[in-house]
Amino acid sequence: MSSPKSTNKVASGHLYKYSFTSSSLGGLETNINVFVPSSSSSSSSSSKVPVLYYLSGLTCTEDNAAQKGGFFNAAADAGVAIVFPDTSPRGAKIDGEDDSYDFGSGAGFYLNATKQPWSKHYNMYDYITKELPAKVDQLGLGIDTSRASIFGHSMGGHGALTLYLRNPGQYRSCSAFSPICNPTACPWGEKAFKGYLQNPADEASQYDATLLVSSLSPAERPLDILIDSGTADDFYKQNQLLPEHFQNAVRERGYDDQRVQVRLQDGYDHSYYFISTFAPEHIKWHAKFLHN
Amino acid sequence: MSSPKSTNKVASGHLYKYSFTSSSLGGLETNINVFVPSSSSSSSSSSKVPVLYYLSGLTCTEDNAAQKGGFFNAAADAGVAIVFPDTSPRGAKIDGEDDSYDFGSGAGFYLNATKQPWSKHYNMYDYITKELPAKVDQLGLGIDTSRASIFGHSMGGHGALTLYLRNPGQYRSCSAFSPICNPTACPWGEKAFKGYLQNPADEASQYDATLLVSSLSPAERPLDILIDSGTADDFYKQNQLLPEHFQNAVRERGYDDQRVQVRLQDGYDHSYYFISTFAPEHIKWHAKFLHN
Repeated sequence: MSSPKSTNKVASGHLYKYSFTSSSLGGLETNINVFVPSSSSSSSSSSKVPVLYYLSGLTCTEDNAAQKGGFFNAAADAGVAIVFPDTSPRGAKIDGEDDSYDFGSGAGFYLNATKQPWSKHYNMYDYITKELPAKVDQLGLGIDTSRASIFGHSMGGHGALTLYLRNPGQYRSCSAFSPICNPTACPWGEKAFKGYLQNPADEASQYDATLLVSSLSPAERPLDILIDSGTADDFYKQNQLLPEHFQNAVRERGYDDQRVQVRLQDGYDHSYYFISTFAPEHIKWHAKFLHN
Repeated sequence: MSSPKSTNKVASGHLYKYSFTSSSLGGLETNINVFVPSSSSSSSSSSKVPVLYYLSGLTCTEDNAAQKGGFFNAAADAGVAIVFPDTSPRGAKIDGEDDSYDFGSGAGFYLNATKQPWSKHYNMYDYITKELPAKVDQLGLGIDTSRASIFGHSMGGHGALTLYLRNPGQYRSCSAFSPICNPTACPWGEKAFKGYLQNPADEASQYDATLLVSSLSPAERPLDILIDSGTADDFYKQNQLLPEHFQNAVRERGYDDQRVQVRLQDGYDHSYYFISTFAPEHIKWHAKFLHN
């Protein structure tokens, strides 16, 4: 894994693509893209840069947000690395794996599957939270994985929120574009949980940001969250995203609107045009925590 | 053409896609993307915004640079519209039209073909310089097409340079990422000119930026040009781009390096990662001329 499959210079830094075999994903090969700003140095720990994990949405790979997200000039200015994993295992050879856009390949939902035949490979939760940081450490790219934050889009926004909420201390801040905020209450989440989990009624709540936050309190678990969702987003209109459910839940628990911000952005849709508009602001917001 | 096929809000403005029948392209349907910043107003001529035409490279459509170029936040800040045309006619039903990536579909080379059977449809030069500005005027989007500049990438950089050089007064400034600077002396240009032009030996010089600039002088024809090309660009290494030929030609004619800048950017390749790195700087540079 020490030699990248490809390298592109961008924003004075470099974007590297790596392939490696993932034990969390049952021994399948997986790809990541890693942006490293020019300010990083692997030789001195004081000049290592902090890292942002970006989780993509349904149908995406590690490439889409790297190509269309508009993150790199802002990340270079902020002195922050960005790691883009894939959205699911690939090539598990499970019947029906490639049949729908919202389940199976490209749709790992950042959970650990408990249902056969998915449970051997579909363990994106373990992959992102445990295996990936260790892999990034091994790259020797001057990235300090002890200073990490997480963000994502749509299904990846769901991933970012749930991983952040469930792992205190692992991520300093969490942001999301158009996240699926309450997956147990929307068609995408219901389908995924029914398909991946043996007992969705018991297991799904640990993968639902709105339910997770409902048992937290600002005194015991301070949160720093920034959510942007567009009002012209068809999936928002179809009640797949439900940002209001999350907003109501955090308010009920007494979280401050300044530290847990849920913003509805007028007229924006679900596309990378929306992401790229607010990408620099999200990077800058995370950098405050990562350089603190 | 008054109703867009699609609309996406981006960078507080909007990206519209339109389809229309082009007479220059022999009656074929063609698509454009148009970014309009929120600062524009169609109701008052004083608040109309100037326009940048972006010409894409081989294999691209009107979409690639809109999705991957990273232009819109900078264009919004600068108060500049951007028009993205396609790179060739589509669906002319000419034998071999879709056979190679560097000739025919996706490879119009921004010229008027004189050779059969291409000459009926492959007239991108007339389309971009004459028909497109009139179409943009008709859209009623608050764009002032009398204040225009032009830029592009690779084959589109060739297009931007040659259209700028041949049409004094039409474009205020010209910039290019990795342009084909001397197409009569490189394989891409030789193939295109031989294929599209009846007498390449006579006709090709009018489509070659290095040859065109060799007959100009700073006193009679002041130029404002910004070129960026990457040293790790495989096509640069294969002598498809030849920026040094253009640089030498402008210096020989006595042009000032400050107003005609040819910059080699260390380590960058031919990709959109390169374009997106320098996109904000190009937009800002053009805005000086467009708002003057």
